[in-house]
Amino acid sequence: MYSMTKKIHFYKYQGTGNDFVITSDIYQITTQQIQLLCDRKFGIGADGVIVMKKDSSVDFDMMYYNADGSESFCGNGSRCAVMHAKFLGWISDQCSFNSNDGQHEASINNELVNLKMHDVIEVGSSGQDFIANTGSPHYIRFQDTLNLDIVSPAKEIRYSNEFKEEGINVNFVVSKDDSLQIRTYERGVEDETLSCGTGVTASVIAEYVKSQHSGSDYYRKVETEGGMLAVSFTKTELGFQNIYLIGPAVQVFSGEIGI
Amino acid sequence: MYSMTKKIHFYKYQGTGNDFVITSDIYQITTQQIQLLCDRKFGIGADGVIVMKKDSSVDFDMMYYNADGSESFCGNGSRCAVMHAKFLGWISDQCSFNSNDGQHEASINNELVNLKMHDVIEVGSSGQDFIANTGSPHYIRFQDTLNLDIVSPAKEIRYSNEFKEEGINVNFVVSKDDSLQIRTYERGVEDETLSCGTGVTASVIAEYVKSQHSGSDYYRKVETEGGMLAVSFTKTELGFQNIYLIGPAVQVFSGEIGI
Repeated sequence: MYSMTKKIHFYKYQGTGNDFVITSDIYQITTQQIQLLCDRKFGIGADGVIVMKKDSSVDFDMMYYNADGSESFCGNGSRCAVMHAKFLGWISDQCSFNSNDGQHEASINNELVNLKMHDVIEVGSSGQDFIANTGSPHYIRFQDTLNLDIVSPAKEIRYSNEFKEEGINVNFVVSKDDSLQIRTYERGVEDETLSCGTGVTASVIAEYVKSQHSGSDYYRKVETEGGMLAVSFTKTELGFQNIYLIGPAVQVFSGEIGI
Repeated sequence: MYSMTKKIHFYKYQGTGNDFVITSDIYQITTQQIQLLCDRKFGIGADGVIVMKKDSSVDFDMMYYNADGSESFCGNGSRCAVMHAKFLGWISDQCSFNSNDGQHEASINNELVNLKMHDVIEVGSSGQDFIANTGSPHYIRFQDTLNLDIVSPAKEIRYSNEFKEEGINVNFVVSKDDSLQIRTYERGVEDETLSCGTGVTASVIAEYVKSQHSGSDYYRKVETEGGMLAVSFTKTELGFQNIYLIGPAVQVFSGEIGI
């Protein structure tokens, strides 16, 4: 470590296997610093970095950065940030915060974080498959079983003419009686990840559309490769509202690093 | 984290991209604890765990465990342990320590750790290729260039009838004027790693044999995927002696975790 570096305190969290470095020691962060923090050999190692600070209008501000330094909204990352705000004593069990895509509300019940997602107006289709944007764009394909290798079929979709420029996340989903089983390929990572909160949310909404469900309230458990999540929402004439992504967010360790 | 867990302080090191969790808070460690510490999503994430304690007969004792909990000697891991012993104030620039395979000596010069490896009595051959044991068994194949995919040819060797039971590490090596270029497939990991200290050592010894070098002293720089190492030794009638593995060992961060 060089004398030029600044030593920061950080916390490492995971939400159903999606893992994050969280710090409130800095808020402005460079791409180079993000890439170092996320490097699993030469840094701490994470899917993304979250910087947080207190805010006067809401409880806190957070920014999420992918491991490559790009910005996005991240459902699992936001859930971890909410749990960390409670750990820091910034909030009790209810909060509102600003993230990359605007304001969100969240609550903590029985160690589970209920994160309110933005409304989804419509769900598109592509043949038998579905397309929805829940903060990130998602392609959802329902299948009878999940293939051993999801990366090859996901890349066919993600690098197809329609999506190759902007990229898209690809979800393969099996609808079971008691839960959805899901595996997700994430753009940016360009590989399968253990869990993707926005993908889980998009898939439950797509299942509602596919099943031609008649009721307005919908709740489903979702089995990801990294653990269990749940999604609830209300379908109104305006689309999908009061969408909640619900699941655990766990502090794994804390530490100090020079960046 | 559960109330049953014990909180330990740890340090994360890397030596040419080979990364380790080091602690002196505990010395007895279970396979389950090792696997948790090495898990890159639900733990800290590392290629292996090193536990260290002071010793009355040598400067310190260390034990190295692979991510799966198995024991072995690890050249890069031992170099990191030496650097950490200096950081802790247990040693200055010279030391002797006990590791999984017995006693070693080491010194630190200009931030590089010179680790004395055990003598190698003989080098075997398999067709045009070489086999040497430098604490771990290594297969060494010299090539004109390095393939993009080394995993497939490495697996052919590692899972061949001769080696499939015990396993073997497989090194592909290009001899260049100013250095050896090397890529290593490690058994246990069953994949390519960024750097393998015992593989680097075995490869330089194999090059000595292959090149029918006439002098007794040999020194070579080695370019791994994770950075530069060097190996020196003296060839005597008894085999290869005073073998040193030389390279950087860097503390990346420190932290606390409940295990």
